[in-house]
Amino acid sequence: MALTFWFEFSSPYSCLTARRIRTAADRAGVAVRWRAFLLGPIFAEAGYEGSPNLMVEAKARHMWRDVARRAHLRSEPFVRPATFPQKSVAAARATLALAEADRPAFVVAAFECVFGEGRDIADPVVMADAARAAGLDVDRVLAGASDPSAKAALFAAVDEAKALRIFGAPTFVCDDGELFWGDDRLDDALEWARSRALAHA
Amino acid sequence: MALTFWFEFSSPYSCLTARRIRTAADRAGVAVRWRAFLLGPIFAEAGYEGSPNLMVEAKARHMWRDVARRAHLRSEPFVRPATFPQKSVAAARATLALAEADRPAFVVAAFECVFGEGRDIADPVVMADAARAAGLDVDRVLAGASDPSAKAALFAAVDEAKALRIFGAPTFVCDDGELFWGDDRLDDALEWARSRALAHA
Repeated sequence: MALTFWFEFSSPYSCLTARRIRTAADRAGVAVRWRAFLLGPIFAEAGYEGSPNLMVEAKARHMWRDVARRAHLRSEPFVRPATFPQKSVAAARATLALAEADRPAFVVAAFECVFGEGRDIADPVVMADAARAAGLDVDRVLAGASDPSAKAALFAAVDEAKALRIFGAPTFVCDDGELFWGDDRLDDALEWARSRALAHA
Repeated sequence: MALTFWFEFSSPYSCLTARRIRTAADRAGVAVRWRAFLLGPIFAEAGYEGSPNLMVEAKARHMWRDVARRAHLRSEPFVRPATFPQKSVAAARATLALAEADRPAFVVAAFECVFGEGRDIADPVVMADAARAAGLDVDRVLAGASDPSAKAALFAAVDEAKALRIFGAPTFVCDDGELFWGDDRLDDALEWARSRALAHA
């Protein structure tokens, strides 16, 4: 059984997952689809003013500390970007314009720019750097960000996320509909998909 | 270095922690203080209408599913109580009226009533059952729930929680002020306290 990894480029916990999901999924023998989406419209529909992690100062403070601690535990770099939340629309479109096989390298490279280096993914120079780091054609990736079919794909992704009752990121949705929210639940989601695959073998 | 375990009887994740923190802390060699408090006044001050986990239907739905899955992974019973959120004031006062050494058994027994059996901790019969299961004098525990000094202690606990910038439960606060939120962070908090104790040995 496969699962879909729903992520948002402005979400630091999505970055933590992007960095490790390929290795973890390979170990579990679970195929992963990478799906960029936007939390903005979902938070707006839920009645939040912006991110629920930022509404309360104490919660926001803990989030940054928590992400930094987890990155440190995993020996990964973490920089709190000066621009936050980030405007992730262009990067999300560029991701959805890519073939599934090209997405992981680009997404991880983009997350490294944002949360490994503190840069702004809304800056085309940053997106170009991410594309280059991923070994992709820079012009093709940048063109994807304004491609009409990628715009439509992002609208569709947000609609699908709403229909799946996704309310945060990262979220993992197994093919049987089971939904797991948060980087903390990656292992549980993979185990769910792995064990159900066995049951149907 | 010791840590304080802040819990709320209406919080299912606090129950998951209460069940395992004694064993985990013993293994880490970390002393734990058990501190009941109330999330209601903290959520109200944060501007939430009720629990942030319940404001959004999709998030509430995930919370119940997630808690049930985690309890299942740990081979623990879990029943979603008919009454939720629960009125936890009396149980919190009763806890604070107890000596530190008597709290863990009572708190775990009370959580088993709520999330192991789905009962209502605001019911004095349920609180009495929890006291009995903990091997405590039932009348003394029930008297603690309306004791003026316990009322004052609960007000003080909520004020202290606010001062510590606690925004949810369970929360673990190490003696150096480092704050960890959520059952998922219990091991990190214990490791923080354990390793700092070594550094100061």
